[in-house]
Amino acid sequence: MSDIVTVIAPVNIAVIKYWGKRDEKLILPLNDSVSATLDTSVMCAKTSVCARPDILENEIWLNGVHSSFCNQRLQNCLTEIKAIARNQKSVTDEFLSWNVRICSVNNFPTAAGLASSAAGYACLVAALAKLYKIQSDISKIARMGSGSACRSVYGGFVRWHAGVNPDGSDSIASQVADSSHWKEMRVLILVVADTKKHISSSKGMTCSVETSELLKYRVEHSVPKRVKDICEAIKDRNFSNFAEITMKDSNQFHAICLDTYPPCVYMTDVSHKIVEIVHKYNEINGDVKVAYTFDAGPNACLYLLEKDISDVLSLIRHMFPTSSNEFVKGLDAPETNKTDVLKDFPMKPLEKDLIKYVIYTKVGDGPKIINDESHLLDAQGKLV
Amino acid sequence: MSDIVTVIAPVNIAVIKYWGKRDEKLILPLNDSVSATLDTSVMCAKTSVCARPDILENEIWLNGVHSSFCNQRLQNCLTEIKAIARNQKSVTDEFLSWNVRICSVNNFPTAAGLASSAAGYACLVAALAKLYKIQSDISKIARMGSGSACRSVYGGFVRWHAGVNPDGSDSIASQVADSSHWKEMRVLILVVADTKKHISSSKGMTCSVETSELLKYRVEHSVPKRVKDICEAIKDRNFSNFAEITMKDSNQFHAICLDTYPPCVYMTDVSHKIVEIVHKYNEINGDVKVAYTFDAGPNACLYLLEKDISDVLSLIRHMFPTSSNEFVKGLDAPETNKTDVLKDFPMKPLEKDLIKYVIYTKVGDGPKIINDESHLLDAQGKLV
Repeated sequence: MSDIVTVIAPVNIAVIKYWGKRDEKLILPLNDSVSATLDTSVMCAKTSVCARPDILENEIWLNGVHSSFCNQRLQNCLTEIKAIARNQKSVTDEFLSWNVRICSVNNFPTAAGLASSAAGYACLVAALAKLYKIQSDISKIARMGSGSACRSVYGGFVRWHAGVNPDGSDSIASQVADSSHWKEMRVLILVVADTKKHISSSKGMTCSVETSELLKYRVEHSVPKRVKDICEAIKDRNFSNFAEITMKDSNQFHAICLDTYPPCVYMTDVSHKIVEIVHKYNEINGDVKVAYTFDAGPNACLYLLEKDISDVLSLIRHMFPTSSNEFVKGLDAPETNKTDVLKDFPMKPLEKDLIKYVIYTKVGDGPKIINDESHLLDAQGKLV
Repeated sequence: MSDIVTVIAPVNIAVIKYWGKRDEKLILPLNDSVSATLDTSVMCAKTSVCARPDILENEIWLNGVHSSFCNQRLQNCLTEIKAIARNQKSVTDEFLSWNVRICSVNNFPTAAGLASSAAGYACLVAALAKLYKIQSDISKIARMGSGSACRSVYGGFVRWHAGVNPDGSDSIASQVADSSHWKEMRVLILVVADTKKHISSSKGMTCSVETSELLKYRVEHSVPKRVKDICEAIKDRNFSNFAEITMKDSNQFHAICLDTYPPCVYMTDVSHKIVEIVHKYNEINGDVKVAYTFDAGPNACLYLLEKDISDVLSLIRHMFPTSSNEFVKGLDAPETNKTDVLKDFPMKPLEKDLIKYVIYTKVGDGPKIINDESHLLDAQGKLV
């Protein structure tokens, strides 16, 4: 009989984007990517797992909904972990024969369009690794669930190495710097009101690989230099270099999406307005104070330093009037008074409620095992 | 004493885009481009010029407004034509010493965001060439006024050769096929309601040359093959090849704009909606019936064959409800009844008045000398 293992795992936001696979089945990327892992106190996935002889078949609940276990990526992760456990003899053969129950939740709305699969698969794999007591790099197992999940296996700033081996054995994540290295780094996620259905990132990147003529150049020429430069910027805590590379790579990723046929369009007029505001704000300050980055959706993720949070939140409140009572969620936000910059800001406030809300967070640590008994499954492996 | 010379000249819409100069002063492009010249009966520039001994200084009126002659591009065109005339001894030295009056108008709203400079400079140069009786390729002179103006010097389908000579002597336009070659080709310009100020194409392309890493690949790899293929598609009247290359090149051009730092964004949510509708319409028909292309603004230009005009206008009216009484301008449009395709069209009509109006036109001829006495200057060289 096993105990319940419960893990929480973080979301990560790429600053050098992953877009395009060289192997669809093993989820091997065309290029390296780099991300920051976000604080689990604001956003996280939480997963409880257990294995018992009295469970008749493998079962999974996702955000409270009993879901199909016939999911190739989920099965690949479980199979791989069991194979390692068998190899390492970390648990008994009897234990390996038992079925599992998995229960996973996100503490943030999936409707927000924030990539929840990275946190979810990192969490699942970390929990199963603990359950089966394996000693192994788990980033490449998380990768089999969702490519970018491999970056959520570490805290701080993380690099996913594309690798060159056909079996994916060297396509793993490594930490560039831990969360204490650049304590001042902050993140604002601007959740954009949006009704459009965007093509999934998985389908989009497959289509880009097949049709974008520019992707090849990005992979071979742009990304390698950017990865090198941004890792140096992180090590040197050079914000303006970090920010400029981040913005350029977000723009290039969306350029590749547009060069895809038919084009994949993720950014909206509101997204582009945020881009314009950030460039204008940096220009007025004569300094790069804020960087934007956009994933496969319209939401903006802004990187900035703690000292500028108050001014930038004032700017966002000024430019994007809201009818929400809880516009800024997450960490405690400082006072946001209109500052000198705002009085002369050369753009007019936009119409109300273009941004639904803002999540204020920071760079944080990797997955954590939870020992406080707040499991999602009870001692009998039943849903709490 | 000279007569008044009056010329009308067409607009052209590129299917392989010009974006990026290798020489800013001579206006030499990084890559070849290809366009269709549009019928002057729907849209044209009209220019009257004269030279007289009693004109005290060179003067120009643009759309009824007395404008500065201190415009380098305008002066370059006049100087070049006079130099050729002097060389060819096509007019007397006395005639060459006289000042000129120029009056130019567009018969379409410049506010529509349609490139008026191409028609305007093609018209000016054709009129001055006639006035000074020069025998010479005028496309490279028009190019000195506005790059894409060199393509408005011919009718039908036109290719602007980038050339390789540093002096621009081989950066000229040539006709791929005349307007009678593909009589069925039609064009719909969807003028999108837009309040945003877009960066000028001249500034935008300079910024792309300086900052876009992907532009180099476009110029060296994508465009040469596309130019070759689309010229073949035009010669073969192969609409689906023509259309697919046109759409891909429009998308890639806007991808390059997005890869520019800061990014140049010309397309809006409405532009992208038009893209989505066109792809969906083609998909439903199992055939490429319509192609979109977008210049440095949000307006769509659709290429299609005459047989599909009625259906496509029905689709546009259905998807973009209007409060305008004169929604379709230009050529006489056929009846637009809801067709079978519309009943099952899987997208919902959008909100009212996102498209201001539609211009229905076709491929037409190059500049024409007007002999019907409808000059813009009177016999004394005064504004009519």
